[in-house]
Amino acid sequence: MSETPSNLKQYLSRIKGLVDGYIYAYVKGEPEEIYNAALHLVKAGGKRLRPLITIAFAEMLSQPPEKALSFASAIELVHNFTLVHDDIMDKDEFRRGVPTVHKIWGEAFAIIAGDLLFSKSFEILADALNKGIPPNRVVRAATVLSSATSTVAEGQALDMLFAEEEDVDIDDYLKMIYKKTGALFEAAAILGVLVATEDELLISNASSYGKNLGLAFQIRDDILGIIGDEKVTGKPVYSDIREGKKTLPIIYALANLPKGDSEYLRMILGNKDASKEELSKAADLIVKSGAIEFAEKKARDFGKRAIEALRVFPENDIRRILENLVEFTISRQK
Amino acid sequence: MSETPSNLKQYLSRIKGLVDGYIYAYVKGEPEEIYNAALHLVKAGGKRLRPLITIAFAEMLSQPPEKALSFASAIELVHNFTLVHDDIMDKDEFRRGVPTVHKIWGEAFAIIAGDLLFSKSFEILADALNKGIPPNRVVRAATVLSSATSTVAEGQALDMLFAEEEDVDIDDYLKMIYKKTGALFEAAAILGVLVATEDELLISNASSYGKNLGLAFQIRDDILGIIGDEKVTGKPVYSDIREGKKTLPIIYALANLPKGDSEYLRMILGNKDASKEELSKAADLIVKSGAIEFAEKKARDFGKRAIEALRVFPENDIRRILENLVEFTISRQK
Repeated sequence: MSETPSNLKQYLSRIKGLVDGYIYAYVKGEPEEIYNAALHLVKAGGKRLRPLITIAFAEMLSQPPEKALSFASAIELVHNFTLVHDDIMDKDEFRRGVPTVHKIWGEAFAIIAGDLLFSKSFEILADALNKGIPPNRVVRAATVLSSATSTVAEGQALDMLFAEEEDVDIDDYLKMIYKKTGALFEAAAILGVLVATEDELLISNASSYGKNLGLAFQIRDDILGIIGDEKVTGKPVYSDIREGKKTLPIIYALANLPKGDSEYLRMILGNKDASKEELSKAADLIVKSGAIEFAEKKARDFGKRAIEALRVFPENDIRRILENLVEFTISRQK
Repeated sequence: MSETPSNLKQYLSRIKGLVDGYIYAYVKGEPEEIYNAALHLVKAGGKRLRPLITIAFAEMLSQPPEKALSFASAIELVHNFTLVHDDIMDKDEFRRGVPTVHKIWGEAFAIIAGDLLFSKSFEILADALNKGIPPNRVVRAATVLSSATSTVAEGQALDMLFAEEEDVDIDDYLKMIYKKTGALFEAAAILGVLVATEDELLISNASSYGKNLGLAFQIRDDILGIIGDEKVTGKPVYSDIREGKKTLPIIYALANLPKGDSEYLRMILGNKDASKEELSKAADLIVKSGAIEFAEKKARDFGKRAIEALRVFPENDIRRILENLVEFTISRQK
């Protein structure tokens, strides 16, 4: 698997510095405990891919990164808010290598901490007015972000409902991950364009880039959920299998394994009492089915479409970074 | 206790029709189950006081109610979102006379349902652009609403932290209820002015009206938490005592009861295993201390300040309704 390309790596680290600085300056108040809980996951790490997308689209269109900082940070806060609530819902105990918010502060506090990140994200977004973005574009950005967040909620709900359904097919899965993950990547790209312009062709191509990249990203995530190394990902391994999630590799394996194997897999899926050995055997069966290669090909296809969508944008170094981001996304180990 | 004044009653019912219609038209999507969960409490009832405030301020300033509908509905959705999450945190099983969202759909689904109401509230707010409100005022409204929602989260956190603290005094309590309740009433009034104008004197007086009314409202709520009739309020009685909440009547009683009584009260407070008899005896002690009269006087004082803040607004029928709303708030039985 390829190393993060060095220009992307440098760009990511620059974005992380900018975005984190802005977030820490903005997200504070009383009582301090709730802000500590709210910022816990932000501080624990994370790649800042979504704010990178926003800032890169703006910079590709000749805007200074600082001007994109409100929109970019707002997206990152929304993302972190969904993680805090997701961890409560999935009862996950670790993320980014640290205990989750509800493990440290309890569920009630974690619910509020997530809500706080969400409300702060709109405060931060509206601050774009002070960065010289005209009010009509700020309102449009608010619409894009809030509507994407509604879509994320729909996706989380589908994800939960699918865990209890027998016959989830690949189309259902793709619809669900577009909502759960693609919509926020899409919003990140559109917000980047809105820093510069309301040109509808650019907005629609940014939408296509973000959406396809998001799909590729989630498929890679679901692959890592089967073959990922817990020490590298920072997340508990096999939790998708234990929770009976209908991810792409799992759907493929269920449909393509020999009957006995597929019945074994179905028995382990969603079984909270499954032992580590049983989970590991289920993961091996998924690998044996060819599901990983299948999912990797799907991720590459979406990645290709994301890169194609960049064609209408100026050919410059930043566009190259957005292309590299696609490569990184489909080959990453965490 | 006074009956709801007939003009306020009529106005409330008119607002409820407008706001509910707008919310139902806007808050829908796939999967349907999550929208049913999100709208469960909205459908179960509620007084629509906050959207009434927004629309009344706009109408008092000669704006048509329809123009205020985005802002008003956004506020109501934020309010309902906080209720859904509050009920999970407090483990309350009933509200508005029906089972709470997490009792019906489970905690995970209820968390998402609340998040969805929150994101929808910003979608709805941004729709104000289509109602002819200029973009700069829409952005300001978004700032006011998101910042108020952050304040509500701070208030909920304080409320939880106070339950574990021994020495919460009246000033701490007032600060907490301003955050938990006052801030959203304040935002409701400011948003109403923003439908018409950015006049800073009017905004600051609307802020004062909303804030003081919110304080009076929460104090009345806390009084009903001790002496309210479960059948009328639709909420479980004595839950404040069981959860050890530091409400105004409770703080007053702890400080003013004879030592033996105050020790008994302290023993019952926050005791999840307390029997109905013990809770009822604790409530009787609070009444005996004079806490209810004390709290009622406080609520009246804040109500007076709210009415004073209206002086800078045009003297018309709608202003009368906002005055009557104060009276209703401090004497209501639910």
